[in-house]
Amino acid sequence: MVTKYTEAELLEMTPHEYRSMVRKGEWTESTRDVCPGYAATDIVIISKEYAYDFLVFCHRNPLACPVVDITEVGSPHPPLLAPDADLRTDLPRYRVYKDGQVVDEPTDITKYWRDDLVAFLLGEAASSLYRAWKAANIPFQSKGTFTTNIPLTPVGPFHGNVAASCRLFENSHDAIRAIQIASRHPLFHGPPIHIGDPSAIGIKDLSQPDVIRPAGQIPPMQPTDGIAMFWPCFGTVRGVAVEAKLPLMIVDYPLHNFVSDKLAEELALL
Amino acid sequence: MVTKYTEAELLEMTPHEYRSMVRKGEWTESTRDVCPGYAATDIVIISKEYAYDFLVFCHRNPLACPVVDITEVGSPHPPLLAPDADLRTDLPRYRVYKDGQVVDEPTDITKYWRDDLVAFLLGEAASSLYRAWKAANIPFQSKGTFTTNIPLTPVGPFHGNVAASCRLFENSHDAIRAIQIASRHPLFHGPPIHIGDPSAIGIKDLSQPDVIRPAGQIPPMQPTDGIAMFWPCFGTVRGVAVEAKLPLMIVDYPLHNFVSDKLAEELALL
Repeated sequence: MVTKYTEAELLEMTPHEYRSMVRKGEWTESTRDVCPGYAATDIVIISKEYAYDFLVFCHRNPLACPVVDITEVGSPHPPLLAPDADLRTDLPRYRVYKDGQVVDEPTDITKYWRDDLVAFLLGEAASSLYRAWKAANIPFQSKGTFTTNIPLTPVGPFHGNVAASCRLFENSHDAIRAIQIASRHPLFHGPPIHIGDPSAIGIKDLSQPDVIRPAGQIPPMQPTDGIAMFWPCFGTVRGVAVEAKLPLMIVDYPLHNFVSDKLAEELALL
Repeated sequence: MVTKYTEAELLEMTPHEYRSMVRKGEWTESTRDVCPGYAATDIVIISKEYAYDFLVFCHRNPLACPVVDITEVGSPHPPLLAPDADLRTDLPRYRVYKDGQVVDEPTDITKYWRDDLVAFLLGEAASSLYRAWKAANIPFQSKGTFTTNIPLTPVGPFHGNVAASCRLFENSHDAIRAIQIASRHPLFHGPPIHIGDPSAIGIKDLSQPDVIRPAGQIPPMQPTDGIAMFWPCFGTVRGVAVEAKLPLMIVDYPLHNFVSDKLAEELALL
């Protein structure tokens, strides 16, 4: 994508400056490498009618659905993470579902906004865990996202199985350190839900993920040996959304997250 | 109170056995020393009509309102903490508010129960923090509960200031260890919200608490010197409840909590 900004300028932008650029339509790409250190989130926008069930669902499935912020009904401004942001325009791309079907993947959802909508912001691992592991010199390889046989606790129309991201670590020491560090970030999916044998959680073939994540800045590593660990990811909520068949549900397009004013470390637990 | 059980029997009871005794009306006293190690909670029972606002309020004020479990609408059974418990009968005493006024303090709320009620269970510090500190040989003195000038983030009809429990520690080392240990228990109010000068949070006189807590098993300590730390407590929610003036709201009577099947350590974070 062509922008008028250099790579160095992009790296030094504040989240406020970055979101202004997105709002003006000058950035419609992935948020993976923007505003390093700042917490990014996935978003789920639904009608108030379903908001209580969804919030109870998140409470009962906290590792899969870590709610960091909630807007007032009808307001697109996240009060905790960035009160001056506008969730209708400040993400580079969205995915709009009607009755469980994708109907649009726009870069602006102003035309879909209504006074009865609520936005939930859910912590996103790459902005926090990946960076924290890198800072601790823990290499890992992202193996993609898989459907598991781990059931979510259902609430109202929301039900399904955990979708998990697989990350491969070189050795026990790195795996244990990775668990310790992830445990500091419960708002970004926290500790893994499984370690070791993928078949124990219903994954038959690690070479056949549902979604392949780009490796990005992750150091190269041989996938033939190592310790596999699994984290619930936002694909869980997308899957649940499809099954719930809500009349309207808007989420962020994969890898096109909301970039908040808070550093991931500001939201860490210990 | 006369019960047919000896002190030793009481200490060795499972939460299930204890709750059966309460249900039969054989125990209407404080839960402070029953079923040691098991997580106790405060409860808030309100109409579904107000449940979404209340849950968002709790999410925005997590240290004051740490939600551990939520019943289905109309169900008195807490699915996570004790599915076979009945919240209408299994607490030794309740407090019933109508329009913000206390109208009853019964030992059973079956006659108040309705199909539109939801119960929220909020972690209670004495069952977790007190025990964890004692296990780590950290003496402290409970100084009672105080109204502070720290505002809660308001949501819908729910607003007010934090009510805080003051606990006095002998020295820096104990205070720091107490913070570390409390941080492992975010579902039981977690780390303190203030350390040191009480006047900084609007408390004029530490010798004049709103509520005096019984010292229980806490080792004696001179209150003249030491480090004061402050934790939000359930008095916060009671205060908010009064101000919200809901048509009906039922909470646990002070110190008469719900005793769950989960050990406090099962719910600790790290």
